[in-house]
Amino acid sequence: MSDTYTPVPSDKLSFGLWTIGWRGVDVFGGAVRDELDPVEAVERLSSLGAAAITFHDDDLVPNDATREKVLDRFTAALAENNVAVEMATTNLFSSPVFKDGGFTSNDREVRRYALAKAARNIDLGARMGAHTYVMWGGREGAESGAAKDVHAALDRMKEGIDTLCAYVRDQGYDIRFALEPKPNEPRGDILLPTVGHALAFINDLDDPDRVGLNPEVGHEEMSGLNYAHGIAQAMWHGKLFHIDLNGQNGPRFDQDLRFGAGNARGAFWAVDVLEGSAGRAPRYDGYVHFDYKPPRTEDADDVWETARANMRNYLILREKVRAFRGDPEVQQAMAESRILDLWEPTMSPGETLADLRSATYDLDGLAKRGMHFERLDQLALEYLYGVR
Amino acid sequence: MSDTYTPVPSDKLSFGLWTIGWRGVDVFGGAVRDELDPVEAVERLSSLGAAAITFHDDDLVPNDATREKVLDRFTAALAENNVAVEMATTNLFSSPVFKDGGFTSNDREVRRYALAKAARNIDLGARMGAHTYVMWGGREGAESGAAKDVHAALDRMKEGIDTLCAYVRDQGYDIRFALEPKPNEPRGDILLPTVGHALAFINDLDDPDRVGLNPEVGHEEMSGLNYAHGIAQAMWHGKLFHIDLNGQNGPRFDQDLRFGAGNARGAFWAVDVLEGSAGRAPRYDGYVHFDYKPPRTEDADDVWETARANMRNYLILREKVRAFRGDPEVQQAMAESRILDLWEPTMSPGETLADLRSATYDLDGLAKRGMHFERLDQLALEYLYGVR
Amino acid sequence: MSDTYTPVPSDKLSFGLWTIGWRGVDVFGGAVRDELDPVEAVERLSSLGAAAITFHDDDLVPNDATREKVLDRFTAALAENNVAVEMATTNLFSSPVFKDGGFTSNDREVRRYALAKAARNIDLGARMGAHTYVMWGGREGAESGAAKDVHAALDRMKEGIDTLCAYVRDQGYDIRFALEPKPNEPRGDILLPTVGHALAFINDLDDPDRVGLNPEVGHEEMSGLNYAHGIAQAMWHGKLFHIDLNGQNGPRFDQDLRFGAGNARGAFWAVDVLEGSAGRAPRYDGYVHFDYKPPRTEDADDVWETARANMRNYLILREKVRAFRGDPEVQQAMAESRILDLWEPTMSPGETLADLRSATYDLDGLAKRGMHFERLDQLALEYLYGVR
Amino acid sequence: MSDTYTPVPSDKLSFGLWTIGWRGVDVFGGAVRDELDPVEAVERLSSLGAAAITFHDDDLVPNDATREKVLDRFTAALAENNVAVEMATTNLFSSPVFKDGGFTSNDREVRRYALAKAARNIDLGARMGAHTYVMWGGREGAESGAAKDVHAALDRMKEGIDTLCAYVRDQGYDIRFALEPKPNEPRGDILLPTVGHALAFINDLDDPDRVGLNPEVGHEEMSGLNYAHGIAQAMWHGKLFHIDLNGQNGPRFDQDLRFGAGNARGAFWAVDVLEGSAGRAPRYDGYVHFDYKPPRTEDADDVWETARANMRNYLILREKVRAFRGDPEVQQAMAESRILDLWEPTMSPGETLADLRSATYDLDGLAKRGMHFERLDQLALEYLYGVR
Repeated sequence: MSDTYTPVPSDKLSFGLWTIGWRGVDVFGGAVRDELDPVEAVERLSSLGAAAITFHDDDLVPNDATREKVLDRFTAALAENNVAVEMATTNLFSSPVFKDGGFTSNDREVRRYALAKAARNIDLGARMGAHTYVMWGGREGAESGAAKDVHAALDRMKEGIDTLCAYVRDQGYDIRFALEPKPNEPRGDILLPTVGHALAFINDLDDPDRVGLNPEVGHEEMSGLNYAHGIAQAMWHGKLFHIDLNGQNGPRFDQDLRFGAGNARGAFWAVDVLEGSAGRAPRYDGYVHFDYKPPRTEDADDVWETARANMRNYLILREKVRAFRGDPEVQQAMAESRILDLWEPTMSPGETLADLRSATYDLDGLAKRGMHFERLDQLALEYLYGVR
Repeated sequence: MSDTYTPVPSDKLSFGLWTIGWRGVDVFGGAVRDELDPVEAVERLSSLGAAAITFHDDDLVPNDATREKVLDRFTAALAENNVAVEMATTNLFSSPVFKDGGFTSNDREVRRYALAKAARNIDLGARMGAHTYVMWGGREGAESGAAKDVHAALDRMKEGIDTLCAYVRDQGYDIRFALEPKPNEPRGDILLPTVGHALAFINDLDDPDRVGLNPEVGHEEMSGLNYAHGIAQAMWHGKLFHIDLNGQNGPRFDQDLRFGAGNARGAFWAVDVLEGSAGRAPRYDGYVHFDYKPPRTEDADDVWETARANMRNYLILREKVRAFRGDPEVQQAMAESRILDLWEPTMSPGETLADLRSATYDLDGLAKRGMHFERLDQLALEYLYGVR
Repeated sequence: MSDTYTPVPSDKLSFGLWTIGWRGVDVFGGAVRDELDPVEAVERLSSLGAAAITFHDDDLVPNDATREKVLDRFTAALAENNVAVEMATTNLFSSPVFKDGGFTSNDREVRRYALAKAARNIDLGARMGAHTYVMWGGREGAESGAAKDVHAALDRMKEGIDTLCAYVRDQGYDIRFALEPKPNEPRGDILLPTVGHALAFINDLDDPDRVGLNPEVGHEEMSGLNYAHGIAQAMWHGKLFHIDLNGQNGPRFDQDLRFGAGNARGAFWAVDVLEGSAGRAPRYDGYVHFDYKPPRTEDADDVWETARANMRNYLILREKVRAFRGDPEVQQAMAESRILDLWEPTMSPGETLADLRSATYDLDGLAKRGMHFERLDQLALEYLYGVR
Repeated sequence: MSDTYTPVPSDKLSFGLWTIGWRGVDVFGGAVRDELDPVEAVERLSSLGAAAITFHDDDLVPNDATREKVLDRFTAALAENNVAVEMATTNLFSSPVFKDGGFTSNDREVRRYALAKAARNIDLGARMGAHTYVMWGGREGAESGAAKDVHAALDRMKEGIDTLCAYVRDQGYDIRFALEPKPNEPRGDILLPTVGHALAFINDLDDPDRVGLNPEVGHEEMSGLNYAHGIAQAMWHGKLFHIDLNGQNGPRFDQDLRFGAGNARGAFWAVDVLEGSAGRAPRYDGYVHFDYKPPRTEDADDVWETARANMRNYLILREKVRAFRGDPEVQQAMAESRILDLWEPTMSPGETLADLRSATYDLDGLAKRGMHFERLDQLALEYLYGVR
C-alpha cells in the first residue's frame, strides 16, 4: 500500500496505552490477549509513525511497589523512540470503590480518595510532559432516579474540578483539562451525557478558561447525535481541547471500533470540521487521539494492524476533505447552495428590526428557490468513495 | 373517576393551540380532523381545568385579512373563560420558504423575513400577556455535511436571538425567551440538538439572563437521554424557564404522545425533579405545558379526552412523587444510600488536596459497602404502581 | 408490604444462577461481589418463593475435578428446598476460544468443541430434570461485513441445532430447545437478532416442532421493538417456549435491569400478552424466568432484594392486567374501539373478492369514525398507576 | 464524471413514482414542489438510464374520472421510453379511512374496502406487466397496547394475503407478493416490524411460495439492525423477492435519503450480499428499486440529480465490491480469517456427537489463534474509500 497514508510525528497522532493494551475482558467473557508492556507500546507506536502516547495511572503504574522502576523504563523508551506523552487521565471507574462514581459518589470518603488519586496522577502527567488532562467520569451517574441527586452531584463535580484547576494553577503546571462526555455505559445514565451538557457545565466553573472538551466519536453517536456538528459547536465556543477518534454504529453498546470502521460519512465530516471546513471556521491543531478497542477476535499482532489502520484512515480522510474543499466544482456547488452566504450577518450595519419588518419579501420566489444540497453532498460522497 | 386528579387553574397547566388543533397530517397521510376554532379550544380547555393556552402566529392568525377579528374573538374568549396566554412562539418551519431554516437559512432574505416574522409575533405575544417566548428552530439544521456551515449558523442564531432580546428589552416587554432543543426531524440533524447544547449556546449570547430553555420530554428521549437529568441540569444552571411535557418511546420519530403514555418511569422522575426531588434542589414553579399530538386514530371528541388525560397524569404523578418523598421508609432508604450526603462538600473548610492525599482510605471497606439503590428504586416503583 | 405479591411455587418463577451470582465484571471494571455458592442460591430463592433455578455449565460446574461433588450438593439442596431445574443452557461465549462464536465460529475445531460442550450439558440438563434447553448464541456474529459469511453461518447454525435435536430425540430426553435472540453486544451484530429472525430460522430446521423461542425483554427493546408484540407473534406461531423477563431503557448497552425497572408500560403489556390479553388469544403457562443483573452498586444482601423485587413486580403487574381486562368499563371501551371485532374474518363464509369489490363503502363515514384508543389506553395506564 | 457509473437498462434499476414525485409534505410543513406528471417521470427516468418504474394506485390514478386517460398516456410513455413497470403496490395508508390500518383495521368495513382496493390495483399491476406486488402495511399497528389484539391482527393479515394470493393464482397472473417490514412510523409500532418477523409470518400463509420480502435499507436500520445481514438471511430462506434501497442514519424518523447517503459502509455490504459475497451464496438478480425521498430543500430540477445519484452510487458500490472480492490479497486475507471454512460442515460424513465428545481439543491454541478480521475489514474499507 501507498506510503502516502503513513503518518509522521508532525501529524500529531496519539494513542491511549489502554487501547492497544486492551485485553478483551467484557461482560460476557474474559481476557483474550496477554498484558502489553508499556515499553513495547511506545516502540511499536513509534515505528508506525505515531507521535504520542497517553495513559491512566492504573494502566501505566498499577503497582506502587514498582512505580519508579516502571516510570524509568517508560521514560527512557519515550526518549529513545521520540514519543511524547501529550495527555494523561485518571482511572476513577475500574476499582469497586468507584462503583457509584468518583467525584460524585454518594460516599464522601470515595470522593475524597478520587480527588487524591486524580491529583497524584496530575503530578505524574505534568512530570511526563502532558499538557492536557482528560476527565472521563464513566461511573458518575445512576441506574435509577432516586439514586443520585443531580443538583448535588453537579455541585460536587464542580467542586472536584475547581479544586484540581486551582491545584494545577498553584503548581504552575502547563495543563488544561478536557472533559469527556458519554451518555451511558457502564452506568445507566451518566452525568454530562453529551458535548452540549459538558460545554454548559464548564461555564459555571471557577476557572472556565482552563477547561474544555475531549469529545469521542462513539460517545456522541451512541446518542444518535452528529459528531461533526458537536465538535463544530465545541470549536465555536473555543473549547475543543482534545479529540478522541474511533468508530460506532449508532445507539448500542460502546463499540470503540477503529476510526473509519463505523459511520464512514460521519468520519469524513468530522475530519472536515477539524480541518476548518470551507476555510472560515477555525482549524483544530491539537493531537489527534485514537480511543478504540481492538476487537476480541484479534491476536497480539492484529492489534498493531488496527493501530496502523486508525492512523491510515485519518490520513486518507484528511486528504479527501482537503481535495473536496479545494475542488472548483465543489466551490461552485457551494456557491449555488449559498453556503458561505451564511457568514454574512442577517442585518446590515445600522439596520433595525423595523427595517426588516417594513421590507417586502418575495415569498413565492423564496419558496421555489432550491437549495441544491443534494448535488453538493453527492460531490462529497464521491470524494469519500474516491471516484473523483 | 376521582376528582383528586381534576386540575384547577392554580396548577398552572397549559396547552398549545396546535396540539389539540392538530389535524393529523403526516408524511404518509392527510388530515383526519376538521379545523379547530381557537375559541372552542379556550372554552374546552377552561372547562377541563387548564389555566392557559399558547400559540404560534400561524395557528392563531394565519390570515392577515381576518387577524384583528380573530384576535378580538380570542381575547374575549380568554377573558370569559379565565384562560391566560402564558407563552407564544413563531412558526418558522411550515412555510416552504423555511425549508432550510429561519434564523440560519443559507438564504439571507429568508433569515431577514424570519426575524421580521418573529418580532411581529413577539408583539402579539406581549399584547396577549405572554411572559415566555419559545423558540423551536425545527428547520435549523441539515441533511448533509456540507450543506450547513455550523460555525456560521451559530453566529446567525446568536445574531437572531441577540436582536430579538434587544428588541424585547427596548420595548419594555416582560418576556423571557426559552429555547427548545430537538435532535432531528424534520431535518436530518438540527442545531442545538439537546438541553446541553442549548444551555451552552446561551452563555455566548449578549443577554444570557433573558434566555433559558423549554425542554420537551420526547425531544430528549429521541436521543436516548434521561429527561429528568436534563431538566435537573437546566435547573442547576437556573435555566428551566418553561417545560413541554409529552410522551415518547425512545429513539424513533417524534411521537408526541400524551404525557404519561410513553416512558412512565421517566415521567415519574421528571415530575420529581420539577417538585424539587428530596427538598434541597430548587422547585419549578412555571407553567406546565403539554406539547403533544392526539393520535390520528382519534376523532374530535377523543381529542378532549387526551387533553384531560395529560393533565390527570401530571396530577397523579405529582401526588405520587410527593408521597414518595414524604414516606419515612423512603427517607430511611435514602439515608442508607447516602443520597443527601452528596450535598456535603468533599473537602471540609480549610482542607487542601495535600490533606486528602496524606489521608488513608479503607479501600477494602469502601469496595464492599453496598449502595442499596435497588431497594430505594423499588420503593419508588411501588409508588408508581400505586401499591404503597 | 402486603403479602399479596409474595410468590408461591405454583407461580412458576425462576432465576438463572448467573443472575443472582453475577459478580459485576464489565468492560470498565472488575468484580464487586464474591462468588455465590449455588447451594446458597437455591436456599435463598426458595425462601423468597421462587420455584426453579437454571444454569449454564460454567456457572454450576466450571471445574471438572469437583463436578460430581458440586452436583451432589446442588441436587441435595434442590430436593431439600423444593426447587426445580426447569431449564439449562451452555456457555458458548465466555472462553476465549468462542471469541468468534460457537456453532458458527469460522474455526471448525471450535465449532466441534462447541457442539460437544453443548451435548454434554444437555445430558446434565436432562439429568437435573430440565425440559427446556436455551440457546443464546451471544458470540455468533461479527464486527465487520466480510468477517462472517452469513449464508454459511446459518447453514452451520442449522447443522448444530439439527444435530442436537436429533441427539435429544435419540436419547429420549423430554427437552425442547428455545432460541434466545439478541441484536448485538458482545458482537457488533449477532445472527438471528430478533424474535422474528429466530422464528423464521426455526422453520428451516429438520425438527421445527422441537424448537421455539426464549425472548428476553431487553434484547428486543435494544432494537426499539415492542416486546409485547414480539411475544404475541411468537405465541401466534406457537413458539413461546420460555421467557426471560428483565428491564431495559431502549437502544443502548444490555442493561439487564430487574423486571419492571425499565419500560414499565412495556412490562404491563408483556404480562397482559402472557395472560392471554382479552381472552381469545392463548395464555403462556411456562416458567417465568428472570434474566437480569443486580447492578454493581449492590452488595451481597442487596442482591436478594433485587431477586425479590423481580418477582414482586411480576405479581403486581399480573394482578393489574387481570383487573384491567375484567373491568366492565374497560370492556365497554374495548367494544367502542372495536377491539374484538378484529377476530371476525374480513370476509363472510362464501364471500369472494368480487363481492367486496362490488360493494359500496361509506368512505366519509369511515374516515370520520374515531377509534377512541386513547380513552382505552388511559384506562390501562390508570391500572398501571394503581389509581383505579 | 465518468460514464462508468451511468446505468443501462440491463442494470435493472427502478424507481417508485412516489419517490421522485414526493412533494415534501411532512408533519411540520406543506408541499414545496409541484405535482409531477407520471409521463415526465417515465421520460426523465429513461433518459437517466433507469429500466423501470413502479406505482401505488393513488400515485398514478388517484381519480377514477380520468383513470383510463391517464393510463393510456402512461402506457404510451412506457413504450416510447422503453421503461417497464416491474412492481406495483396499493396505498392503504394515506386516506383517513386507513387511520387504523387496512387489512388489520379494527373496522371490518375498512378491512373489506382495503381488500377490494388491493385487488383492483393488482389487476392494474398485472395489466401493466408487473411481476412483483409489494405490500407495505404502514398503518397496520398501534400506538398503545390494548388498541390492537395482535393475535387477531395476524389472523386478519393472513386472511388478507391468503385471499389475494388465491386471487392472483385464480386469475393466472404471473405475480409474486413481497412484504415490506417497518418497525414504526407512522404508527407507534407496526406489525411485522423487521425482515425476520415478516419471514416468520410467511411460513404460516396458505401459499408461502408466492410470498417473499421487499426489505428497505432504512426500515431495518431504524431498528439498528444490520441490513446486509437481514437480506442475507432472507436469501438463505429464498425470500428476497424485491429490494428497496435508500439511506438512513440509524434509529430516528424514516429519512428516505438517497442510496449511499446514509450508512455508507452498510451500503457497501448490502451490495456485496446482493452480488453473492464471496461467491458461494446466491446472487440477487431482481430489480434494484430505489425508495427514497428527495429532501424538501431541493427543487424540481434537483430531484433528478438525486435520482441520478441513487443509481450512480449503486453502480460505484457494485464495482467496488466486485473488485474487493476479486483481489488476491483479499482472498488471502479471507483465507487467513478462515471465512470460507465456514462452508465446511462441522461434522464429517458419518461422524456422531460421540466422536466430537471423545475428541481432544487444543483449547489454549484455539484461544490464542487470532481471527485477523480487522485486516480484512481494512481492505474492504480501502475499497470503499477508493484508495486501492
